[in-house]
Amino acid sequence: MTIDATGSTVTDEAVRSLDTTADPRLRELLTGLVRHLHAYVRETGLTQREWKRAIGFLTATGQACTDTRQEFVMLSDVLGVSMLVEEVNSPDDPAATASTVLGPFHVTESPVRAPDATIDLAGGGEPCVVDLRVRSADGTPLPGATVDVWQADGNGFYDVQRPDAQPPGNGRGLFTADAEGRVRFRSCVPSAYPIPTDGPVGVLLRAAGRHPYRPAHIHFVVSAKGHVPLTTHLFVAGGDYLDSDAVFAVRPSLVREFVRTEDPALARTFGLTGAFRLTRFDLVLERT
Amino acid sequence: MTIDATGSTVTDEAVRSLDTTADPRLRELLTGLVRHLHAYVRETGLTQREWKRAIGFLTATGQACTDTRQEFVMLSDVLGVSMLVEEVNSPDDPAATASTVLGPFHVTESPVRAPDATIDLAGGGEPCVVDLRVRSADGTPLPGATVDVWQADGNGFYDVQRPDAQPPGNGRGLFTADAEGRVRFRSCVPSAYPIPTDGPVGVLLRAAGRHPYRPAHIHFVVSAKGHVPLTTHLFVAGGDYLDSDAVFAVRPSLVREFVRTEDPALARTFGLTGAFRLTRFDLVLERT
Repeated sequence: MTIDATGSTVTDEAVRSLDTTADPRLRELLTGLVRHLHAYVRETGLTQREWKRAIGFLTATGQACTDTRQEFVMLSDVLGVSMLVEEVNSPDDPAATASTVLGPFHVTESPVRAPDATIDLAGGGEPCVVDLRVRSADGTPLPGATVDVWQADGNGFYDVQRPDAQPPGNGRGLFTADAEGRVRFRSCVPSAYPIPTDGPVGVLLRAAGRHPYRPAHIHFVVSAKGHVPLTTHLFVAGGDYLDSDAVFAVRPSLVREFVRTEDPALARTFGLTGAFRLTRFDLVLERT
Repeated sequence: MTIDATGSTVTDEAVRSLDTTADPRLRELLTGLVRHLHAYVRETGLTQREWKRAIGFLTATGQACTDTRQEFVMLSDVLGVSMLVEEVNSPDDPAATASTVLGPFHVTESPVRAPDATIDLAGGGEPCVVDLRVRSADGTPLPGATVDVWQADGNGFYDVQRPDAQPPGNGRGLFTADAEGRVRFRSCVPSAYPIPTDGPVGVLLRAAGRHPYRPAHIHFVVSAKGHVPLTTHLFVAGGDYLDSDAVFAVRPSLVREFVRTEDPALARTFGLTGAFRLTRFDLVLERT
């Protein structure tokens, strides 16, 4: 068996076939794709049996996708590709909040919520208050900014994963920043959780001897006029897996304490009694 | 926006996460995959919007697959990857028949056929006789070799694409070579045809300004004891698209004349009357 296929002209032929691509950026993306795929096949000496297994894996990954499950996003996540895409596109301005992966659970529209509302519709977790300030990198507050929030519950599941146990929209909310750029809401402290492992990505993780856990976090997508949209997480300090996130999304600058608080006035504002946890996080956007 | 993500450590983290892969070959394949995917994202400065479009495309490709349609094989084919995999694994021995792509239509089991049988169950095309000799690279005939055959009809469709117009198994047959290594069968002259363009691969071809046609051909998978299995095509000389096959599978050594013949004795053997076309092709296998 040869491995290098030295005399092969198919790479040049495949690249040349893309010369007629009308959109120059698409031509660049497709040409780069062909070059890397071909280099990979040559370097590894990929066998027909391995190729068939890869075709089967990709097919199963596509077929595992539903309206509420995105297995290809998970595959991109566990290979570090999603995080790298975020880093390649991350803000230049060091004052801006670091971005991180979108993840596979941004699959339904978040319900619009009033200021100080709760997104914990099911109860049961440890209550917390999240106090956010949205501002521009120069410090200016951004009133009217929208903050799309989603998180797993205290048991580590998103609403779409447990439609029997959680009402739709549990752990989700679309908030608008007030005149000071502030968004506050009540929730429960999220817990670490495994990404779903009953599909092809689970097969891959097991073959690689990797665990499927993500450290506890809350997702945000923040949008404000004149600013680059921000996709990020707030991670819960002190939790497990902060140093071995299955999707490589942790950045130290995104980790915050959830502080035990006994503030009766604040508790009343959020319909709470007794102690709760409080966390503060600034969402700082770069100007376009 | 930065493009190079110079400070990013996610590539190293993702590669390191594969260190625990038990199977060393799988570790090599996954590590190479991560390195190439990450290099691609860095080189192109892939945006989040482009990443989402790619995720959507891969998902749709998986979901277009059915028991009788393999859209991921077609994607691999039109990017030249399938042909390169064949070339990387092609026989060292220049006396052996060149291999070419499997294609996406080897999706049902070929019916076992007797010597000199017809695989044209529907009729209608131009009748032809295919006369094959299976031998080892040193010239020894290979009696008992199996030859799996499949082809499109005279209108350019496989049985599985037109279940209303073709009986199952039309254009397919599993033959066993006789004492002289010979396999003969009756068929119709295949025609050039477009690969299916009503799915994601069609979207890709249109965006790239490429035609979807394949030159007329007959597929073979040949297996014989002590020899490397051979996947190849016989291409019909003089047809269209021999120089622009949508899947880059043509090799000059695989093109044969289909000669107009008026041989009453041979015609009778195959239940034909009048003129027909005759083609001869040697299937030469390399020893393992």
